[in-house]
Order: sequence, then C-alpha cells, then structure tokens
Amino acid sequence: MPLTFFTPGPAQLYPTFEKHLQTFVRDQLGSISHRSQQYRDLHKFTVDQLRILLNVPETHAILFLGSASEAWERILFSCVELESFHLVNGSFSQKFYDYSNALNKYAHKLEKPMGEGFAASEIVVPEYAELICTTHNETSSGVQMPVSEIHKLKQKNPDKFIAVDMVSSAPYPELDYSIVDTAFFSVQKAFGLPAGLGVWIVSERCLRKAESIRNQYSIGAHNDLPTMWKNALNNETPATPNLMGIYLLGKIAEDFNAIGVNNIRKGTEQKAALLYKFLEKTAGFSAFVKEKAIRSQTVIVAETEMPAGDIIKNMKEKGMVIGSGYGKFKATQLRIANFPATSMEETEKLIHELGKL
Amino acid sequence: MPLTFFTPGPAQLYPTFEKHLQTFVRDQLGSISHRSQQYRDLHKFTVDQLRILLNVPETHAILFLGSASEAWERILFSCVELESFHLVNGSFSQKFYDYSNALNKYAHKLEKPMGEGFAASEIVVPEYAELICTTHNETSSGVQMPVSEIHKLKQKNPDKFIAVDMVSSAPYPELDYSIVDTAFFSVQKAFGLPAGLGVWIVSERCLRKAESIRNQYSIGAHNDLPTMWKNALNNETPATPNLMGIYLLGKIAEDFNAIGVNNIRKGTEQKAALLYKFLEKTAGFSAFVKEKAIRSQTVIVAETEMPAGDIIKNMKEKGMVIGSGYGKFKATQLRIANFPATSMEETEKLIHELGKL
Repeated sequence: MPLTFFTPGPAQLYPTFEKHLQTFVRDQLGSISHRSQQYRDLHKFTVDQLRILLNVPETHAILFLGSASEAWERILFSCVELESFHLVNGSFSQKFYDYSNALNKYAHKLEKPMGEGFAASEIVVPEYAELICTTHNETSSGVQMPVSEIHKLKQKNPDKFIAVDMVSSAPYPELDYSIVDTAFFSVQKAFGLPAGLGVWIVSERCLRKAESIRNQYSIGAHNDLPTMWKNALNNETPATPNLMGIYLLGKIAEDFNAIGVNNIRKGTEQKAALLYKFLEKTAGFSAFVKEKAIRSQTVIVAETEMPAGDIIKNMKEKGMVIGSGYGKFKATQLRIANFPATSMEETEKLIHELGKL
Repeated sequence: MPLTFFTPGPAQLYPTFEKHLQTFVRDQLGSISHRSQQYRDLHKFTVDQLRILLNVPETHAILFLGSASEAWERILFSCVELESFHLVNGSFSQKFYDYSNALNKYAHKLEKPMGEGFAASEIVVPEYAELICTTHNETSSGVQMPVSEIHKLKQKNPDKFIAVDMVSSAPYPELDYSIVDTAFFSVQKAFGLPAGLGVWIVSERCLRKAESIRNQYSIGAHNDLPTMWKNALNNETPATPNLMGIYLLGKIAEDFNAIGVNNIRKGTEQKAALLYKFLEKTAGFSAFVKEKAIRSQTVIVAETEMPAGDIIKNMKEKGMVIGSGYGKFKATQLRIANFPATSMEETEKLIHELGKL
C-alpha cells in the first residue's frame, strides 16, 4: 500500500506527477538539447505558468537554480556589497544569515526564539544594511510572517532590497512584486515534485545592483545574476539545466492554474484550520506557535505529550508519514505538512487516526 | 518511432533508465526524507558504485552538486587563494578560466586553437599558480588530453593541485587518484541520465587547502567544501539533494560495473574507431582533430563538405539525432557522441546512413 507523506519536504508528490513523468519519458525530453527551440518553448511554458500562478510581472525574471539554498547565496552576491540584515527565528532563517557571513559580508540580525514571529512595526533595519532577508515560512518552527507585514517592512524601508524565502509555502503567499524585490522556493515542498530544482524570482533592480557590485567585488561565477538574466531573455540557462524538473514544474503549475491559485490557497487554509482545531481541542496535543496570526498554513508544528517518535511510528503503520520536530524538538514535536498534494480526505483521515491514540 | 540521440549531452538515455525510474516511482523515493537512514543508504550505494567504477580511493570524497559547471566554481573557491592556471583549447576550458576571473582570482592560461591539444612536456606552469585546470575532453572541439599527459603534468608540478574536467568522458578516462587531486563530471553525458546533477571527486588535500583559504578569503557559502565534506561523512548533503538523480546514477553505475568498466572502455574505443575510420575514408567527411593521439573517444567531431544542417536534418528523418558543430563551426561540423547508451549496432546504422548521403 502506498504511503501518504505529510512531511515538510521532500513531501507527497502531486497526484499528476506520474502522468507528467510518463509524458517526459515518452517524448524523450531527457535527451533534447538545451540550446534547441524545443527546449526554449518548454522553458517559456514553465515561466509563463509560474507568472500566472504567482502574479509575477515582467519587471522580474524567473530563474532556475540547483536548489533554494543556492538562491540564498546568489541573492547575497547580487544585492549586498557590504551589509545584510536578517530576521532570524529558526534554522532556515539562521542559514540565510550564515551564508552572508560565509561570503564575508557584514550580517546583522534581529533574532527571536523558535515559535515566535516578527511584525514590521518592531523592526529597525540597520542604516547601512542593503538587503532585508525575511522568511515567509520558517520550516523548522512553523511560523509564518504575514505577507502584509513583509510588504509594510519594505514600505518602511523603500531604499533597501527585500528578499522573501517562501521555500515551504509558495504558491500560498500572495506577494506583491511591485513591493518585493526577490523571492525563491524549491519544488519538493508545495509543488509536490522530487527535489533538485530551486526557483528564483528577481527584479531588474537587483540586476542593476549586481552589475554595480561587480565593478568592485565578485558576485560569484556560477549562475551569477547578469549571466542568468541574459540567458533567461532567450529562455535558456547558462549551464545545462534540470530540464526534467523544469518541465514537471511547468505542468504542475498549469494544473494549479486550472484549479485557480485562490482555490489552492483556500483549500490550504481549510485543511490547516482542521489541523489546528484538532491540536487545540485534543488532550496530549497543542500548537507550538501560540499566536494565531503567525501560524504557518503549510507546515503545522504540534507539541505532543506522547513521545513524537511513537506517534510517527504508529501513523506509519497506518500508511501516513509525518515529520519529526526540527533539531532539539525531535522528541517532543511533530511537523505536519499541508501542501496541495494531500487532500482534505487524507487530512481528515490523519486527524481521525491521531485522535485514536 | 523513438529517436536515437548521438548528441553530446543531453544525450541518449541509458537503456536501463526507464526501469530504474519506475522503481524510483514505485518505491516513493521522491518523498523520502534526506535526513533518514533510507536516504543515507541510497546515497552510500551510489558513492560505493562510483568508487568501484572509477577506482576512487578513500582519500577522495564523492560529492553531489547541481551541475558540473558548479564544480568549476567550487574547485576554484577551494583550491585557489590567488592564482590559477588553465589549459584552454575550446569553449568549456575557456569557461573554467572565465570562472576564475569572475571570482577575482588571477587566472593564467596557455591557449591553443580549437582542435589542438596539450602535451605535458610543453607546459610551463606559472610559479605562483596554485591549481592547474585541465580538460580531459573538450566537448566543443572533440580534443582529448591523454590521461598519461595529465598524470605527467602533475608529476612535473607535485606541489600544485590538478583538476580534471571529465564532464563528457567519465567513466572513460582511467584517472589515478593518487595523482589527481580533483575531477568532475555531469550525468547527462556518458551516464545517459537526464541533466541536473554534477559529481565532484575531491581529495582531503583540497579540503585542507579550502580550510586554510577560509581564514582570509571567502570560499563560498553554498556547497562549500568543508560543509559538503562533513555531510558526506554521514552520507548526506548540506541542502536537499537531487535524490532522483543520485538514485538513478547509482543504478546506472551498478549496471556499468556489471559489464565491467574495462569492457565499457573497450566498447567505446571500438565504436570510436569505426566512426573515425568512416570519416577518413569517406569523401565529404574528415576528422576535425588531425592528431590521432588526442582525438576524443566520446565526442567525435567531423568536418563536412555538405552543410552540416542538411546532414542533421537528413539523419533525423532516419531516426537519428546528431549534434551540430560548436559556435562558429555550426555550419561546417558535426559532433557525434559516442557514449555507452548507443550500441555498436546503432553506430553502424548511423555510419551506414551517413555513407548513403
């Protein structure tokens, strides 16, 4: 019996994945040249579907990287000459900060414990910071930064760049790209695909900054923004791309568009509401994130009285895989992914089985 | 009717690809955690199969990147504090050189026209160059640097590091890793897989150098060598890996090992001999690389009297896709890949049809 994965990435594959994979194999797309018109059409299809899905204007390019982690590096290379500023409240926002230090930038941070979030009104961005690094969905703790707070933060600091890590939430957050300079995600989360592809949405303003930094500092050699941008204008990539990933992503985005992104978002919220309701009303469970407004809709983190490992084992016997807590919370927390690939019925079944413990 | 791809990458997929892909889907490997024992076992299997296939000792790690182009950057970050030296005789060796400049290193080069190669005896490595960058197989021109010359070059310069680009030839070159410090390849060439994964073989000596450079210069943030090395000891990767690519690569390497790498190499040479013989004896065709000792065994470049585009079109009608010449040679050259995925029979059929033109 196949398992249902409620893990926060790699995650359950989207139901149409197999069908699209079969087309990929049948059409021998794994062998086509990445410098052919056939490839450029395929590349453009995926970019166009993502533009519709995420409402990305032509001021921003949509680029393909090896992973979302690579985007941390490429954004820092492109938008930061000397100083960056990071909102850190978990392992992944911390890594964005660590990357800046590793590139010998001066990285500032405002830090909060896991489980807490940030409001624009409380944030003072250091004067010389060029880039504000935010994490829409902190996969380690299940905290979401409301999109309205991200937008406000940029509006309070219009001369700075703002980057949004939406690795484990896209396409849920409705970002306004007239405000947001750059954002990124990976495909093994809410898009329900195997890992190996990162997507980087980035504005022409970032490109200009990268070009100006390049006069004095290295902006990297591999997948540097000016080279990627130039190739993207021709629907190509500088190096041989993960064509399979790009093809499959385009088809899944098309499927999402057929449903409508607002319906996808509504479905996400409905399933999340059920999960949080269960955690609140069931003895032995509680939501880790106390403040409702910052609870993640896509990665629900639960505190458990029973050892989390026992619950995970029990659920696996019933055909459902849930994630363990991150790092030091491994024994006392569960992470339940709530991506489009898992249906309302599957969510209800999970809740039903958790309730019987 | 499915096409047979004689293109130099992306190329013909290996005959067992579909079978392994089906197992990947059936076993739901696209959803498993990259921090699970199941993943670590899978990762170790691929590394072990590659160690056997390429005879890589435990002094060297085998790491996974997004592409082979990424390896250029990571090698330069890790092994070069200030100066690198490059043998340049085509577009890909030139890119390795360009990457060094983009990282603000001082890059020296010894340059020859496309179609020519290098002998160790003629190469004087600049005194302060820390790394010698060689290209075993220049995909753009079909020139191979004999492995014996690569080994000699390092033996003449024992204090320097030597890197070998074997993107479009591995597993053909029989490198001696007691001599070679680092080498890399991608999977969409001779391994017959879809693109999206680079493999980086790198010595502990390179790791020590990276650690020492880090005290003064950035060695990058994403996939930096010390972090990758530490993760590899645990059969993991720092970021979520291209698990599908790593799984498929392990299975193809296992298939290659069942045949035996020497038989794979012998088969490559037999097919290459047929192709070169055809080019030499057939009016309207000639081998672009005149010196037999440096002719590539895996990417055969032909000069044609007929417009190359007409030949490509004609062959495609017969179900065979061959590559065009690189860059300015597009109209006058063909590139014919000779990877394990195309059989002796398919090669004979191609020659037969080319002969009828």
